[in-house]
Amino acid sequence: MIRVGTGVDAHAYAPDAPLRLAGLDWPGEPGLSGHSDGDVACHAVVDALLSAAGLGDIGGLVGVDLPGTENADSTGFVRLALDRLGAEGWRPVNISVQIVGNRPKFAPRRAEAEARMSALVGAPVSLGATTSDGLGFTGRGEGIAAIATALIERD
Amino acid sequence: MIRVGTGVDAHAYAPDAPLRLAGLDWPGEPGLSGHSDGDVACHAVVDALLSAAGLGDIGGLVGVDLPGTENADSTGFVRLALDRLGAEGWRPVNISVQIVGNRPKFAPRRAEAEARMSALVGAPVSLGATTSDGLGFTGRGEGIAAIATALIERD
Amino acid sequence: MIRVGTGVDAHAYAPDAPLRLAGLDWPGEPGLSGHSDGDVACHAVVDALLSAAGLGDIGGLVGVDLPGTENADSTGFVRLALDRLGAEGWRPVNISVQIVGNRPKFAPRRAEAEARMSALVGAPVSLGATTSDGLGFTGRGEGIAAIATALIERD
Repeated sequence: MIRVGTGVDAHAYAPDAPLRLAGLDWPGEPGLSGHSDGDVACHAVVDALLSAAGLGDIGGLVGVDLPGTENADSTGFVRLALDRLGAEGWRPVNISVQIVGNRPKFAPRRAEAEARMSALVGAPVSLGATTSDGLGFTGRGEGIAAIATALIERD
Repeated sequence: MIRVGTGVDAHAYAPDAPLRLAGLDWPGEPGLSGHSDGDVACHAVVDALLSAAGLGDIGGLVGVDLPGTENADSTGFVRLALDRLGAEGWRPVNISVQIVGNRPKFAPRRAEAEARMSALVGAPVSLGATTSDGLGFTGRGEGIAAIATALIERD
Repeated sequence: MIRVGTGVDAHAYAPDAPLRLAGLDWPGEPGLSGHSDGDVACHAVVDALLSAAGLGDIGGLVGVDLPGTENADSTGFVRLALDRLGAEGWRPVNISVQIVGNRPKFAPRRAEAEARMSALVGAPVSLGATTSDGLGFTGRGEGIAAIATALIERD
């Protein structure tokens, strides 16, 4: 039994915050706003996983009222989502994430980010990055968007 | 035999119209513009289903010239798309929809919307919702976007 | 063994350039900017295929430093991506592409574009098109966006 899920997220740059993206620290890069660490890639992954399994969305998983979510490391949200899926017998097949934004330059650390996210998820996580050619909020350098598609299965 | 399909849609708020979203009425919420009822979630679902099966897109299914489409209930378009898929032997496995917008607050009625859409489709339909952190047209409160990914199968 | 991948791309209109979209020439239509021919549909397809297979993204496949990429026909990038997938034993199951923009009117040539892209890929490629109801950069007529989801398999 196989299912597909999609999640999207966007956060504005918060230049004074440290950047967390795809489970990595990016020293010297402008951070992202958000109640947690603002990691749009992790948030999109969480929503894709939950949606595939019919288990709601990230707002229901980790509402802003939940203790410990302020400035939280979003990789913990991914773990929490995987726990919920596992409790229902679901396991990830693979996840594909596309990041859209002007910064950071993602390619030099793509392999590292994929290794980090794949180890976290326990299945292949692919991470691509592109700009939007100067168009829209990502093109104006206002923030970063991410879209994730997840395939999951159970016996 | 399994296939994947993706559909996206966006509509501007039309405050004087009643809101239809994910097959539900939302009394008191600003509506969406559009030739039909402007239900972006249903429209994205239709495009995802048709695209998965290689059967065109919503413009070909229900052009603005088709009688009865003005202010039409878009759940009828979903039924029509399912009829086309069924005629080719396709059935939905599951559909995942992400809604992006500031309003309405979706979480309180997510379960109701999922039940409505899943009954309509005859397979699990997951509905997540997020804002875009004040970014882009959804962040400025100009409209709502939706993206749907569908998995379908046939023998 | 099956995997899913997602890719997105956007390019600004470059009215003096010829338009290439979904592997077709569109005489008389405003073109798209970009180092290559700016074919957003092909670029999204390349990223979806590479991401599904865990083989990086289009920037790693055909960097702007690679000879022959300036003004290049992006169908060549699709072929190159398929070669990389084939070398790892992957073959496409199907690809679904949604194009978002005001121009060109896509419907009259949708069948032709699907035939072209499906022949190129060697598997069904579905192409849908929509506007964004006047919203965002696509609605303002600044450019075209495309999102592709690919399903691939290997034994």
